[in-house]
Amino acid sequence: VTARAAADRGGRITLLTDFGTRDGYAAAMRGVIAGITPGTLVDDASHDVPAGDVAAAGWALGNYWRRYPAGTVHLVVVDPGVGSSRRALAAEVEGRFFVAPDNGVLTRVLVDGSGARLVQIVEPAFMNDVVSATFHGRDVFAPTAAHLATGVALERLGPPVTDPVRLELLVPERSGDTVRGRVVHIDRFGNLITNVPAAWITPRSRVRFAATDLGEVRLTYSDAHIGHAVALIGSSGYLEIGIRDGDAAKMLWKGRGTEVVVECQ
Amino acid sequence: VTARAAADRGGRITLLTDFGTRDGYAAAMRGVIAGITPGTLVDDASHDVPAGDVAAAGWALGNYWRRYPAGTVHLVVVDPGVGSSRRALAAEVEGRFFVAPDNGVLTRVLVDGSGARLVQIVEPAFMNDVVSATFHGRDVFAPTAAHLATGVALERLGPPVTDPVRLELLVPERSGDTVRGRVVHIDRFGNLITNVPAAWITPRSRVRFAATDLGEVRLTYSDAHIGHAVALIGSSGYLEIGIRDGDAAKMLWKGRGTEVVVECQ
Amino acid sequence: VTARAAADRGGRITLLTDFGTRDGYAAAMRGVIAGITPGTLVDDASHDVPAGDVAAAGWALGNYWRRYPAGTVHLVVVDPGVGSSRRALAAEVEGRFFVAPDNGVLTRVLVDGSGARLVQIVEPAFMNDVVSATFHGRDVFAPTAAHLATGVALERLGPPVTDPVRLELLVPERSGDTVRGRVVHIDRFGNLITNVPAAWITPRSRVRFAATDLGEVRLTYSDAHIGHAVALIGSSGYLEIGIRDGDAAKMLWKGRGTEVVVECQ
Repeated sequence: VTARAAADRGGRITLLTDFGTRDGYAAAMRGVIAGITPGTLVDDASHDVPAGDVAAAGWALGNYWRRYPAGTVHLVVVDPGVGSSRRALAAEVEGRFFVAPDNGVLTRVLVDGSGARLVQIVEPAFMNDVVSATFHGRDVFAPTAAHLATGVALERLGPPVTDPVRLELLVPERSGDTVRGRVVHIDRFGNLITNVPAAWITPRSRVRFAATDLGEVRLTYSDAHIGHAVALIGSSGYLEIGIRDGDAAKMLWKGRGTEVVVECQ
Repeated sequence: VTARAAADRGGRITLLTDFGTRDGYAAAMRGVIAGITPGTLVDDASHDVPAGDVAAAGWALGNYWRRYPAGTVHLVVVDPGVGSSRRALAAEVEGRFFVAPDNGVLTRVLVDGSGARLVQIVEPAFMNDVVSATFHGRDVFAPTAAHLATGVALERLGPPVTDPVRLELLVPERSGDTVRGRVVHIDRFGNLITNVPAAWITPRSRVRFAATDLGEVRLTYSDAHIGHAVALIGSSGYLEIGIRDGDAAKMLWKGRGTEVVVECQ
Repeated sequence: VTARAAADRGGRITLLTDFGTRDGYAAAMRGVIAGITPGTLVDDASHDVPAGDVAAAGWALGNYWRRYPAGTVHLVVVDPGVGSSRRALAAEVEGRFFVAPDNGVLTRVLVDGSGARLVQIVEPAFMNDVVSATFHGRDVFAPTAAHLATGVALERLGPPVTDPVRLELLVPERSGDTVRGRVVHIDRFGNLITNVPAAWITPRSRVRFAATDLGEVRLTYSDAHIGHAVALIGSSGYLEIGIRDGDAAKMLWKGRGTEVVVECQ
């Protein structure tokens, strides 16, 4: 399937960056795309990823990439190593396309068994005429994504890649009825999202977080009292710690890496 | 009129949430919509509503819903009660469609005499295959809105609703030449917007706000000195208190509920 | 070329404002456009320009306007003088169209030799039926931009303008091998962007910023140590001062107007 054929009117590209919007950098990327393929729809996934936070970008991408139909091009530019020797990647996984720096931001997409096809972007014909040292989002990634959306084959962008950079993701551990995990993401509500998958948790499991007993896993925030900490299965399918109508990261003063222990019953 | 027929290329959906964008939750909603109806245009009205602030979301919605043409589907997900027994609503008012939790966020749309048609969303055929407990925006509201945009009739979503939740809006009072109102919204500039409608104010009215005399109502911020507080008719058609080139909410330390008194001449 | 003919499906409009999104003001503008020309694609360049900061808006616009294809309508509403006697402008420069208040926000577009055509927007037929005193973005600029996108000729909007307001831009100075410039913009990463163009700098130039020697100009942020200040050519083609993985504006406590001296070798 090509990106072009998959959408009904010229393809679709999503943008995920840490540029903010107010300087016109993200708009410059959209302008480049519009110049190459004016009929392609461009969705701003976000431009508010914390600056340079590759892990946060990868987590966000994990929440939406598969929700889009096959043929979508997901463009990610959180690129603290721009201008260094880091490679530029394009990939196809389950019919969706990806364009991103090779810095681990695709780790949650390129999982074992995904059948990903990966190439290094080297072909100047699909880049801007002038490529700056500091803004590959505009000069390399955006035009390449636009060409993918018009149906250019992945293989034409450059040679295959078999060793993409991967972030070392924290892995939860299970021993008997006890599960140990860690906070891997803090969302915009201040919810502390762990790496413990829903499938590992039984209905009446008890949760201990940073040495505090949070009681049983709940179904929704409505099951907690206002201002109280609660553990539940979040919308991404993982155990998360939150405070009803409050900001858990701020109120509990906890961050990524904090341990959570679940006693399954 | 159906949403499909009203727009010229597959309908239009607006999104209003308190999700922010950086976690990929809003993008997941857009992806679901793209999967159902790739030709539908999706406008981000905002993802920056203060978390859980149903009143602020309702006020924002009031500023734009009627500016869009008939057939537009306005999707609102500010949903602190997600997972509780609160109902999911769909509505048609003046040819526009609405999809939102039944928590009062539609209060300013469902006014007396609006001729609204309202249903409870219960039909699983128009939801995602798996419905999570914590993210109905993605699993219930987005797919339902997408189906509405493709022309699905409102009645197919579920049974009629006659008693939607309504917020109790503060009502201004008039006694002789004196009008008493209250601040009901603080906008992003820090302007304090009251519930006193333009029609109640005469050209040379004098305004007292939190016991301070602000002088006569002005036409524009340009009529005030820089840094001075001023009362004028804002763009939504209500009296508002602002500071020229300043943030009134911060500089006056006032918020929702503060009284304003207008002496009409 | 008209805007209509230039895009392939009904034109394209970009929006740049300081409204934020959460109050629904920006959405009201999009709704007005959708009502006039539902097939036109609307890109949010940004709604996060610092409130009333005409210079910052103009700088952002400079980063993207020419990246969009001919026929695009660039709509800018950073308008602290709304309701005063300031004029409303429409312009065509290099095949792109502009709609904005006459407050200098177009200064970087209307450069000498640009061959700009400029008119004052006065024709009510292309505005909303009711024009408020405080929200010309919705009532004047958005509908005018929508009509331009549908192919209305610039001249029909109003009489020619030959004396648009221009901001006095800081100009760098060169004397022998020494270049003196100033910071003119702070971007969202805290990078301090100067007015010294890349073409004035030789590869081994040394940079002094606020009396501190920053050493030689670098190619990319990767060439600096983490947390160290560095001078390099930024993505807009000007010398900028940044801190690798840090916020230079905050960490160096410097802002617009700070002097930079470059000794070319």
